[in-house]
Amino acid sequence: MYTFKELRDIIQRELDRADYVEYPEQLFEPVRYLIADSGKRLRPVIALMSYNLFHEDITPALKSAIGIEIFHNYTLLHDDVMDDAPIRRGLPTVHQKWNKNVAILSGDAAAIVAYQHIEHCEDKYLRKVITFFNQMAMDICKGQQLDMEFETRNDVTVDEYIRMIYWKTSVLLAGSMRHGALIAGASEEIYNALYDLGGSLGLAFQLQDDYLDVYGDEATFGKQIGGDITINKKTFMLIKALELADDEQRAELQYWISLKEFDKAEKIQAVTALYNAIGIKEIALTEIANYLVQCKEILRNIPIEEERKSGFYEMISLLEGRNT
Amino acid sequence: MYTFKELRDIIQRELDRADYVEYPEQLFEPVRYLIADSGKRLRPVIALMSYNLFHEDITPALKSAIGIEIFHNYTLLHDDVMDDAPIRRGLPTVHQKWNKNVAILSGDAAAIVAYQHIEHCEDKYLRKVITFFNQMAMDICKGQQLDMEFETRNDVTVDEYIRMIYWKTSVLLAGSMRHGALIAGASEEIYNALYDLGGSLGLAFQLQDDYLDVYGDEATFGKQIGGDITINKKTFMLIKALELADDEQRAELQYWISLKEFDKAEKIQAVTALYNAIGIKEIALTEIANYLVQCKEILRNIPIEEERKSGFYEMISLLEGRNT
Repeated sequence: MYTFKELRDIIQRELDRADYVEYPEQLFEPVRYLIADSGKRLRPVIALMSYNLFHEDITPALKSAIGIEIFHNYTLLHDDVMDDAPIRRGLPTVHQKWNKNVAILSGDAAAIVAYQHIEHCEDKYLRKVITFFNQMAMDICKGQQLDMEFETRNDVTVDEYIRMIYWKTSVLLAGSMRHGALIAGASEEIYNALYDLGGSLGLAFQLQDDYLDVYGDEATFGKQIGGDITINKKTFMLIKALELADDEQRAELQYWISLKEFDKAEKIQAVTALYNAIGIKEIALTEIANYLVQCKEILRNIPIEEERKSGFYEMISLLEGRNT
Repeated sequence: MYTFKELRDIIQRELDRADYVEYPEQLFEPVRYLIADSGKRLRPVIALMSYNLFHEDITPALKSAIGIEIFHNYTLLHDDVMDDAPIRRGLPTVHQKWNKNVAILSGDAAAIVAYQHIEHCEDKYLRKVITFFNQMAMDICKGQQLDMEFETRNDVTVDEYIRMIYWKTSVLLAGSMRHGALIAGASEEIYNALYDLGGSLGLAFQLQDDYLDVYGDEATFGKQIGGDITINKKTFMLIKALELADDEQRAELQYWISLKEFDKAEKIQAVTALYNAIGIKEIALTEIANYLVQCKEILRNIPIEEERKSGFYEMISLLEGRNT
């Protein structure tokens, strides 16, 4: 069985030697630019991990795992256009480096390249592969749609938020695991369980991102602390705080949200103090822990020898360790 | 066997009763807006015509024919964003009515809806359906890419132009015919011949559009004459004229192209006079006629009783009649 790191290296090698250079070159250049960067390759890796539960040789699953990574990058490409994001993983986004038209069209092309890769499976799995992939792709669109809608809404509930991040983030993790298991010949029971596992893992991961933006350590988190607070991003922290705040706390939160000009550090400190007073830190930690407990429970119940699942347990442990 | 008009009505009924209303509604509203309009439904109709060559009951092909129409509309949606087009078939384009983000994301969603529809076929055809559809989708992207590149290039050759319109316009017509025949159980020989037929028909149609912009009758053409000339659009007419012009004629053409301010009618008249002098009218007509002869030849050679092909012959005749 392969380790996470080994699988990531295999994915990277495969991505490096892939020949997306086709005519007209300008259509594929941005796709290569995006794929060449230093992403974690989390999605193809967990797809291969799932496949590896059943087969030692992962070669037959490699091409469709690459398809998942390309699909992920296509969604980032279009999301960055819609969010007008200038930077992605430390590099200028495609629409910044080229222009929006290039980003739209090479995104469209990347989606097709993803479909072309994902179809690499035995014929007997093709119908399910395509059906699942389409459903997953649609859920991701729905998530992005809700994310954009939430920007202009002030009454987003925690349930709505969870649904949004489930669609936008979790479903692709869930789908990657299901895909790997499906094309490995897993039973419906098992690939559905892996889908659930990926879903809960994705929620834990996203909520942790929300949490770490407030309570993380800048050095290990890798992002500036308080970024979400600065831009009033409707994260779990803010939505839950607005829900649980008393009148005075809510008024103070709203005050900081409404300010057009402010000292960043001061705002971050004030909002964090409010989160502390409302008890959001503990609530978020409990929520994350619950999802991770769920993950372990799902994993334990999957009828495969425990030692084969070690990679998945390791991933859950990594997430658990991320909180501190 | 169904007539063109009957098939169009069937498609329209199916489109009208389709339930794209899903949550979140804002994601699907633009798709419905686009689909609800009065397009010719040419692509799904020829897909059904091709299916109808082999089976009287076209019901099994209906859903994937709808998928082709949705895919076509998805490409228009994104193209309109890239071209910044304000109007499509007499109505505001989606990015005009909503905004660009809505157009990008609901376009992405429409593409997935298209994929979901197109996969409605017997399992034994699914691999080919998906492979062909992906290849077709990629060719359309390539066509759009070249179209955008040509805008800023002054050395586009006729061959390059033909390749661009082949990808951008013909391939979807070709693919629609092939798709209908494929899922009807046609032999590879026949569905490939229909693909070639659609390809040549598409080229004839696009070249005719280029021709009619100069020599058409405004009333029957339905567009203002000289629109392409006004904006220096690199059509077959202009590219061929620049290729065949003598030095004096080329200088005069370049003069009109370079003018930033001009009297529209005067420019149209002058450029048309140049086209006449260079002999572009006859060259274009010959080119179109050649493609239509090709179409009839391909059609005649398809090993199916001639009377079953009447709908296709009718389509070719319609195109022949469009020149005059």
